[in-house]
Amino acid sequence: MSHKLVLLRHGQSQWNLENRFTGWADVDLSERGIEEARSAGRALHDGDYRFDIALTSVLKRSIHTLWIVLHELDQVWLTVEKDWQLNERHYGALQGLNKAEMTQLHGEEQVHRWRRGYTIRPPEMEAEDLHALSVDPKYLGLQSVPSTESLEDTFNRVVAYWERSVRPLILSGKRVLIVAHGNSLRALVKYLDNMSDADITSLNIPTGIPLVYQLNDDLTPKEHFYLANQDALDKAVSEVKNQSTAQ
Amino acid sequence: MSHKLVLLRHGQSQWNLENRFTGWADVDLSERGIEEARSAGRALHDGDYRFDIALTSVLKRSIHTLWIVLHELDQVWLTVEKDWQLNERHYGALQGLNKAEMTQLHGEEQVHRWRRGYTIRPPEMEAEDLHALSVDPKYLGLQSVPSTESLEDTFNRVVAYWERSVRPLILSGKRVLIVAHGNSLRALVKYLDNMSDADITSLNIPTGIPLVYQLNDDLTPKEHFYLANQDALDKAVSEVKNQSTAQ
Repeated sequence: MSHKLVLLRHGQSQWNLENRFTGWADVDLSERGIEEARSAGRALHDGDYRFDIALTSVLKRSIHTLWIVLHELDQVWLTVEKDWQLNERHYGALQGLNKAEMTQLHGEEQVHRWRRGYTIRPPEMEAEDLHALSVDPKYLGLQSVPSTESLEDTFNRVVAYWERSVRPLILSGKRVLIVAHGNSLRALVKYLDNMSDADITSLNIPTGIPLVYQLNDDLTPKEHFYLANQDALDKAVSEVKNQSTAQ
Repeated sequence: MSHKLVLLRHGQSQWNLENRFTGWADVDLSERGIEEARSAGRALHDGDYRFDIALTSVLKRSIHTLWIVLHELDQVWLTVEKDWQLNERHYGALQGLNKAEMTQLHGEEQVHRWRRGYTIRPPEMEAEDLHALSVDPKYLGLQSVPSTESLEDTFNRVVAYWERSVRPLILSGKRVLIVAHGNSLRALVKYLDNMSDADITSLNIPTGIPLVYQLNDDLTPKEHFYLANQDALDKAVSEVKNQSTAQ
């Protein structure tokens, strides 16, 4: 028996559009993001994909993407679990800044390091912002909210979530859809494909295109592919590369 | 310590609008229903209502109403549980018919009995329709899907759900929002307020107006009220009365 798992990065958000670092800032989809979500839902529908459960983050750009997809699949009744561990990487004090502002504040070399270094954390968010986050009812279950994260930090919590929640679901035969974020999905792909810390830095996952994994019995990947024609895929990947700061 | 529980009947559906019996038919909201859901969400937001969990049926008119309310509350991250036991009363072979068609087919007296008799079941749905329902993935967890229901049948499953799922949540201190249907909510109100089989037949719950219950420690009701001004309420209740077949 083999398993199928579908990963989907949320559609374009307002801050993707403005090329600003988003992280845990709870920014909604842009008009184009809504269209991307619809198109992902239609691709899944037309490919006869159906699911037994859907998992997403607690951020609205992912949740709204999932709702639109479920609507297209005529599966709005599906069980949905939302967990902060699927959230985007926390970008610390960089959240809200765009690339030009960042370069001006911190210099090109430093910005490159934050973006490419697997273990490097951006500066922590201000105490005031951290307090606001810690009393946000979305995060009341957490012992403490992070003030910044390296991609490695994101990797560790995503893998913990995979082991605790996703793996048992897939092994029990459930068809799982995960709608999440650029970096939480990169972390998961790194784990599934056993990629090196260096290789993951050059991997870009496009918004709104379902990424299908065929998994062996032990959940190692047999193959994976994007549910899109090559032209659409090339276009989407190159757009992500060009605005790769806007994660 | 007292508890608060909010009940909300979904906004107008396409078949409410056409005055057709809906039951388990999975009909979506009308434009006006969407507006009603928004307005319910805004009333809850403005009244500072926030929730720890939301419960709804597996029918899209309720789920979409809930999504719209959560959006207005800025609580789309909330845990949502969907259960068939909160579904509308199953109307058997009457589903899809409007009042005029029904009267023509079955006579005024019989129609009145189906609508008003607490223990009376409409004729069972056709074998073909029942088969379609039994293979609907929404209902794969059920041992068998009903082919028709009296209001008493609906009452029994709603109360079973209350005892198993809702009661423990409220007793653990959770603020619960239930978005459901005319008859599943009437059943719940009958139970909470200990109403007679006769009295429940004349109770009408308007669409899209939050019904707030203050409950004692033992979950008996202290008081309840609609979250709307009296004018809006009178108008909504009289509209439900005028189209009371369209449940």
